[in-house]
Amino acid sequence: MSVPVEGPILIVGSGLLGASVGLALRRAGVAVWIDDIDPDCLEQALERGAGERWDRALDTPRLVVVAVPPESAGAVMAEAMRFPDATITDVTSVKGAPLASAIASGADPTRLVGGHPMAGREKSGPGAARMDLFDDRPWVVTPAVGTAQERVQEVVDLARTCGAVPFVMDPTKHDEAVALTSHAPQLISSLLAARLLDADAQAVAVSGQGLRDMTRIAESDPVLWSAILSANADSVAGVLEAFSEDLARVVSDLRSGDGAEVASALTRGTAGRERVPGKHGDTATAYDVVTAIVKDEPGELARLFVAAGDLGINLEDVRIDHVLGKPSGLIELSVRPEVSARLVEGLRSLGFDVRA
Amino acid sequence: MSVPVEGPILIVGSGLLGASVGLALRRAGVAVWIDDIDPDCLEQALERGAGERWDRALDTPRLVVVAVPPESAGAVMAEAMRFPDATITDVTSVKGAPLASAIASGADPTRLVGGHPMAGREKSGPGAARMDLFDDRPWVVTPAVGTAQERVQEVVDLARTCGAVPFVMDPTKHDEAVALTSHAPQLISSLLAARLLDADAQAVAVSGQGLRDMTRIAESDPVLWSAILSANADSVAGVLEAFSEDLARVVSDLRSGDGAEVASALTRGTAGRERVPGKHGDTATAYDVVTAIVKDEPGELARLFVAAGDLGINLEDVRIDHVLGKPSGLIELSVRPEVSARLVEGLRSLGFDVRA
Repeated sequence: MSVPVEGPILIVGSGLLGASVGLALRRAGVAVWIDDIDPDCLEQALERGAGERWDRALDTPRLVVVAVPPESAGAVMAEAMRFPDATITDVTSVKGAPLASAIASGADPTRLVGGHPMAGREKSGPGAARMDLFDDRPWVVTPAVGTAQERVQEVVDLARTCGAVPFVMDPTKHDEAVALTSHAPQLISSLLAARLLDADAQAVAVSGQGLRDMTRIAESDPVLWSAILSANADSVAGVLEAFSEDLARVVSDLRSGDGAEVASALTRGTAGRERVPGKHGDTATAYDVVTAIVKDEPGELARLFVAAGDLGINLEDVRIDHVLGKPSGLIELSVRPEVSARLVEGLRSLGFDVRA
Repeated sequence: MSVPVEGPILIVGSGLLGASVGLALRRAGVAVWIDDIDPDCLEQALERGAGERWDRALDTPRLVVVAVPPESAGAVMAEAMRFPDATITDVTSVKGAPLASAIASGADPTRLVGGHPMAGREKSGPGAARMDLFDDRPWVVTPAVGTAQERVQEVVDLARTCGAVPFVMDPTKHDEAVALTSHAPQLISSLLAARLLDADAQAVAVSGQGLRDMTRIAESDPVLWSAILSANADSVAGVLEAFSEDLARVVSDLRSGDGAEVASALTRGTAGRERVPGKHGDTATAYDVVTAIVKDEPGELARLFVAAGDLGINLEDVRIDHVLGKPSGLIELSVRPEVSARLVEGLRSLGFDVRA
């Protein structure tokens, strides 16, 4: 176990993230003040126990967590520099722009550390705050140019105290990383889903699990994502430009009938997929998939999972693929290869319809 | 229930699909012959019971199912026209090219009907064949120009007899539909996954569920997919060209900082996603997601599902999101909105850690 971050800590902004940081810190026994320019929001956060009311005249924080919208984060971080010797951090999901804006507004870079806890909820506001929101989630810590090492350590301790797993990363690297792994995929998913708007109903009806996977994140909130993408626009544009060039090569290969670029894209894709983290933050492990058919009734899935549990077999992943017009589903159980034969045999012996 | 298709039926090609059609037809009591130019493959299919050995000199089929690789399907369908009055169909996943090739080789279009059973397995060959491979799966039936209606009906009956759900569709429409909903998404997923090859390990490490979803089908077999994409190259190129134009507009908007195109893409994406079939072949239903944290141990998932079953609550979908470096997982349970509060309460009363 690491040492909890030392308080008192001032959280500026009492929305979902700010109030959740407050709850998580107080769970660890750290002294927290919370403040907000919106008095209703602040009252709600205080009622939830996300921190004590801050007295601007009397209370001097050791660490300030700026949890305001991305467009104000830089200015608020610069303003927080008035506390002598306090470390200043934020929780916005893009890192370069807020740090640059804070420094441009006169912030002392030695005390400035960006932060991005990679956790969220569909709901917002202090009412949705949770003390366990950051548990086991990545929290990227991005020092500015010239940040003192002990300030970085303080924000790493903050992340750990909130239950998160800290990753120290250069802010530009962070923004490029999320552009590649989150922001560009979001736009690609949205654009692919948007292409379905003009399609025949029957054409869409015969689609399968692949399209469901590829369009799932297109459900995300357009307003929230517009703000995120705008704050990281150049990095996202860079990823999408490279992607477009790859796409153009493949399209031209399809039109020419050569096939070499298509084959190469497919092969590189399988290799790239290997790098996607799967379980426990490791690279994706190759699991065996055992498929069973279960009726779409309460308790049927349970019967299947109880059977797996009784066999002492851990399910690494579960997918349900509902079948057309029938009250049943294909359940894909991912298990370690060495136990898959035992699972198939065990489920069959209990009367399950298993496709091995 | 519909009438089973009338035999005898000759299946040409005894691989996974051909042998599975044979098993499915015999399950329904239909007379089946099976043939293959590969004697080993044929023997295996005969041993599996996928059909009777065909005597070229004596046996005249009423319906011929051509289950050979896409590049030979047209020629084999044309050759099968020598059986007087037989209906000829195939099972390849692209429809325009094989039908055009059959007609160019002299096939009588009135007796020619394309077919695409939308089912498959990771394994191939007659050893992997299953009588229930097509159960509840879509089977697209594509008449040629001039096909007689009773021939179409015969292939619809074939699909139903094999357990599938037939969809009659124009071959060009079919190829455009699968280009949009399956083939283009495959290349997009592969190209996105390929972009990860050059990324920092740490950059990929902080990715989340969105990237996992978007790259899942990049695991598909490159050889198989090269053949599919080559047979439907123009339709796929058309979809990708339109997608590229959308992408270019978004990139230019990101570079200009305007944001209107990005916002529009995100909004259209949410609308397009609504069209993706979810459960039971309907459009995606809006479910409530209840998140619980369970230990990564055999039996823990079972305990959760048993609890849901005991509450009489049907789980519409399940997702497991493993957390970084911890032996536990976030389980997302999708349920109908009207039962979600009861599920949360019920699970909590049993001591589960539930995030509502």
